[in-house]
Parts: sequence; structure tokens; C-alpha cells
Amino acid sequence: MSQSPATPDVSSSAPLDYTAAGVDYSKIDPLKILAQQAASSTKGNLAAHGVSEIPASRGESAYVMEVGGQLIASITECLGTKALVADAVRAITGKTHYDSIAQDTIAMAVNDLITVGATPLSVHAYWSAGGSDWFADEQRMRDLVAGWQKACDVCKVSWGGGETPALAGVVEAGRIDLAASSVGIIPSRDRLTLGDKLAAGDAIVFLASSGIHANGVSLARKLVERLPEGYATKLSDGRLYGEALLDATALYVPVTEALFAAGIVPHYSANITGHGWRKIMRHQAELTYRIHTLPSVPPVLSFIQEHAGIDDREAYGSLNMGAGFAFYVAAEQADDVVRIAQSVGVQAWVAGRVEAGPKQVVIEPLSVIYAADDLNLRA
Amino acid sequence: MSQSPATPDVSSSAPLDYTAAGVDYSKIDPLKILAQQAASSTKGNLAAHGVSEIPASRGESAYVMEVGGQLIASITECLGTKALVADAVRAITGKTHYDSIAQDTIAMAVNDLITVGATPLSVHAYWSAGGSDWFADEQRMRDLVAGWQKACDVCKVSWGGGETPALAGVVEAGRIDLAASSVGIIPSRDRLTLGDKLAAGDAIVFLASSGIHANGVSLARKLVERLPEGYATKLSDGRLYGEALLDATALYVPVTEALFAAGIVPHYSANITGHGWRKIMRHQAELTYRIHTLPSVPPVLSFIQEHAGIDDREAYGSLNMGAGFAFYVAAEQADDVVRIAQSVGVQAWVAGRVEAGPKQVVIEPLSVIYAADDLNLRA
Repeated sequence: MSQSPATPDVSSSAPLDYTAAGVDYSKIDPLKILAQQAASSTKGNLAAHGVSEIPASRGESAYVMEVGGQLIASITECLGTKALVADAVRAITGKTHYDSIAQDTIAMAVNDLITVGATPLSVHAYWSAGGSDWFADEQRMRDLVAGWQKACDVCKVSWGGGETPALAGVVEAGRIDLAASSVGIIPSRDRLTLGDKLAAGDAIVFLASSGIHANGVSLARKLVERLPEGYATKLSDGRLYGEALLDATALYVPVTEALFAAGIVPHYSANITGHGWRKIMRHQAELTYRIHTLPSVPPVLSFIQEHAGIDDREAYGSLNMGAGFAFYVAAEQADDVVRIAQSVGVQAWVAGRVEAGPKQVVIEPLSVIYAADDLNLRA
Repeated sequence: MSQSPATPDVSSSAPLDYTAAGVDYSKIDPLKILAQQAASSTKGNLAAHGVSEIPASRGESAYVMEVGGQLIASITECLGTKALVADAVRAITGKTHYDSIAQDTIAMAVNDLITVGATPLSVHAYWSAGGSDWFADEQRMRDLVAGWQKACDVCKVSWGGGETPALAGVVEAGRIDLAASSVGIIPSRDRLTLGDKLAAGDAIVFLASSGIHANGVSLARKLVERLPEGYATKLSDGRLYGEALLDATALYVPVTEALFAAGIVPHYSANITGHGWRKIMRHQAELTYRIHTLPSVPPVLSFIQEHAGIDDREAYGSLNMGAGFAFYVAAEQADDVVRIAQSVGVQAWVAGRVEAGPKQVVIEPLSVIYAADDLNLRA
């Protein structure tokens, strides 16, 4: 009844892409659409409680309800397979790297939650292990807890609780499935950033990524099979491939909080995760997103592109390539957004502009265009 | 670096208990305590947002924050290993049983959320599969979605979103790790049921379970190894063991909503999950919980006790044995609580009382006593 994941036949000369790496979105997307339709049909249940949803939040990165005059945002997100990298790299470095893995997991949730204009308040941990013994490794356990706590402190959220099941037979022995859920508030309707003000003429400001973050990791892991030294392979900057992959995902909450404190509300925000730069056209509006200024690419991502043998279109369509988050702001505020982001330690730059035109992302310096059909996230 | 779960050597005559079934709480509990301490240290982060936590909710089944005069409760809970039963039983019945599995997963979250006095508002799905192919089984996918939607409708919650990753290498091939997070409101401080009014003289009202729910499933699965006909073994009522195990977990939200509508606020509530009836003394108060009236035990649970060869102390300390949820209410309201529960279709009865005395659960008809040390959930 159950089916194994596809085991691709990858020769060392063929380019590696996501399907080859075992993730086939064509098989997941029909479920997503079915689930989105069923989910939408339940919104009427809120009326019994005097609560309503913000309709435009459905299909966005976080869900928003209006509860007694308060706007409450919530989300659940998972790490993905990045912990498998930590498990493998521990044998090389002697470090567990689960402090970084903890930050990655929280980043997946809060970096999505802030896209709707929310201030994250609380986080719940979901740490689902392949057996009780996972939790008996004291150093790894302490690193996971310490990293989780630290990321909460950086984001000024309360760690409200969590679940730590041991699920032998569901989760692989010796492995852990990590996820986080988060609840936040949006103090006023003016702070909602669901894209209703997104328009031609807006500037696109990018925030630098800290590395691969937690998307594209299946591809990065698959690549190791082609490397004689595996995760111990040295990058152009002298660091080990495995260590560089484990750089913790940037937490962008301090940036949005600083913007809000300065009275700047983006017209829209996108967290650059799966689907890479195709996510730039995440909003359903019919608009063209023209990118004129590229970031320097983190060495670990250049390395992946080179050794996986993928072209720019595939690389920028799957990986963040140095841009972890996008703000769409009034053109006259773009420089302020850059300055404020940098004031809290996050590199930022004006990367492009929103234009009237067909829905597409145009990466001018690379002559790459992603059309609307290249990104289908909604029913 | 990683360790396999213990593979117990179980002869067919030895009693089966939780450790034999591969779940060793002694290995998990140190992590829980460490995590609880770290989590508690982050509560001060809320002050920056003008938000505070309800301190008594820490360590309870759901976390509560006061946000601009609103009390917001949140939780993340997992299904556990019950989907493995569905996968095995599908080969016998031809049904996927994932509609029931969906209800189980939502029940794990909302039945905990209501213990603090909350009205659940929204649910997020976390469906983490062992590979993209999991989602290509159309019947199973449709059953999972339909069951999820139906459970949301029963609980009058909005399905706000979710995450459907394919995690080959983390989740076992052909398997799925299911969890749910939920957000709710508590309309006033009077509705908080964190146990401050719990006192000697209170009545204990039980709500009937619908079967094993989603706790004790590792034991139930282990038992199959001893049964020549496995999940196809017939119970005393003629049903198949596997099918009976898959009876969906009761959703208790309609009961709490009916109580609140009638103006009845329990002094405390406990969801009877892992640790079975030891959970009756979940609150930290020094009180004795004396049970005088037992439910009829669902045939599937009697069967497990008999064939696992475990005594009452072990059975009631691990399984719900017919009682899925406990209210602790003012004695004069006990009959009303029973009547209201039954009016929404949930069997209920006055099962015992709270007394001054050492912290313990006394099951009088069975001469079983659980002392405080038999349940350690908190740091």
C-alpha cells in the first residue's frame, strides 16, 4: 500500500535538479490544492465565535483572524531535511550543530509569520524523534535546547511549550522531524501586509541570506554523492561544505520590528524559501518584478550550482542565491528600509522594482525570466 | 552518532509494557525538564510587546497569553504512531482509515486546548511524509483531507493552513508524521481553568472515550506480534482488533462549548492521554483523587490488557480504559455537567471526588493507587 520515494538514477555528469533529489512537487501540489479548498470551506465556522478571518491571508504565508478587535496571525512550519546534514557533519567537526538547526527551525516559522505584518509572540516546538534514545544524547539535546532558547530571545518571543514524541516506525531511527508553530499579533489593520497596496512603482528591497537557509537542502545532500570528500570538501573560502551548509538561517524579525518602530509598513513581503526567486511573484497580483541588482552569492550556493551542473534559471528558481527575504515598499522609502535593516545587522539593498505587465520575475543581469506558470502555490 | 530504539526481547509469556513497546519515558523526561526550564526563561520577551503570559498555564496542556485584553491559547500536538495501524489495516479492510486518522490528530490538539478553558478557533495541519509519493495515493489523500475538514466542522474551527513536506530520510518511506497546532480564545479570565479553584469537595466527571484514542498505540501495535491473526483477530464484540483500534478519538470541544454556554466553568480539566489515569492528578496541587465509579471498558482496551498480560495498575496507568477526559467541578454542578455532555452525544458520569490528602489517584473498585511520584510532567 505504501510507496517508497523515487530513487533517481543520477549519473555524475547529469545536472541535479529537485526531482532528481527526490522531491517531486507535481505529486505534492494536487494535495495542496485539495487541502486549500477544503480548508477554505471551514472559514464559516468562525462566525459562531464572533471571529472572522482576514480573507486575503488565506494562501499567504500565515493565517490571520480578527478576534475581538485583535488581529492574530498563526503558522506551522517545518525544518525539512537539514538535520540530516548536521548528523553527517558531526562526524567531521565533532559538533552536533543542533544549536544552528534549532535556529533554522524557528526561522522557518517566524520569517513566514512576519510577511503578513505580524509581531511574533510565541513559539511551540515540535521535536519528533525516531525513538526515545534520540533524547539520550546529552550534548545534542543541550545544543538543541540552547539554540531554540537563543533564537526565541533574538526574536523576542516566548517559548510557550512543545511536543517531544518518540515515533519509532514513523520517523527514521536516529533522526528527528523538527517543526515550529508561532502565534503573533498585528496591532492594527494598517500593519497588515497582504499586498493590497502592492503596485507598479514599488521598490523591491532584498535582505541578505546567511547561506542556504533550510531550503534546497535535498539538492545539497544529493550533491554529496558526487564529491569524493563529501561534506569535508573545501569551498572557495576555505570552509568545509558541510559546515557552510549548516550556517543558521537568518532571523528577520528584528528587521520587521525595526521597520514598524520607524513607522514603515511594507506593501508586501516574501520569504524566499522553496521555489527560490520564483517566490518573488508570490502575490497573486498581475505584476512584473524586475530585478536589477544581484547580491554576492554565498560560496556554498555557488558551489552547489557549479557542482550540481545547473544553470542560473534552475539555481535561482530553487535556491535563495544570497537573497533571503524581499520587501516591496513605496519607492521613496526604499533607502530607509535598507538603512534600518543594516542598523540591526542585516545586509540589505534595493534590488529591483515592481512594474505593470504580465506576472513574471525578470532577473535582468542573468537574462532569466520566470513566468506566472512557473509558480503555482494556490488553488 | 545516532542510536536505534531499543528492540526489546519479548517472549509471548512476559507482560508487555511501555518500555517493552519501545517508548522509554526515562530517556525523554530529562529533555522535557531541560526544555521546560529554557522555555520558561523566555517569558520575559513578551514584555517588549505589551503582552504577558498567564504563568499558571506554563506546564499545563496549552499556553495562554494576555494580548490587549484578550486571552489567547495555543498548542502543538502530534498523532503519534497510530497511522502505522491504519497502514496495516488497510490491507485487511480495503479502507485507508485516514479520515479517522485525521480526526485523531485534530483531537490530540483541541482536546488539550480546551483544558485551559479555551474555545478553539483555528487549526494548522502538519503532514510530513516520507516522500512525495505519499501524496500521490489519491484515495488516502482524499480521506485525510475529508476527515480533517469534518473534524474542523465538528469543533467549529477554521482550518487556517498547514505544511505538507516530503522528508525522505527523516520520515520513514511510505509513512507520515501527523501533527496539528491550534489557537483559541478564552473570552474572560473567569473562563480560565488552570486549577486555582480546584479543591477538596469537587466532583470528578468523566467523559467516555471512543476507544484507544491515540495513546497506548505503541503497546497495541507491539501486541500484534503475539496474535496469529494480527490485526484481523476478532474481539469479544465480533469486530476486528485493527478496525476497533482505528475508531477515531472523541472530539470533546462540543462538550466544553455546551458547558460554557450554560455558564458552567470547570475548576480544572484533564485530557486522559499518555500516562492513562495517572493524568487525573495532572495539576500540581496536593490533593487526593478518589475514583468510585468505573466506565465499561471498550472491548479493544480489555483485549489489549488481557493479551498483553498486564495488570490493572499497568493498564489504567497507560491506557484511558474508557475515560477520555476529566472535569473537576463544584459538587453541586456535577449532575448538570453529566446532563449537558450527554445532550451533545457524549457519555458522561460522576466518577469520583477530590479530597484533602496526599497527591495520589485512588481507584477504589480496583484497589489501585498511583502516588505523586508515578507522574512527573514538570520541572
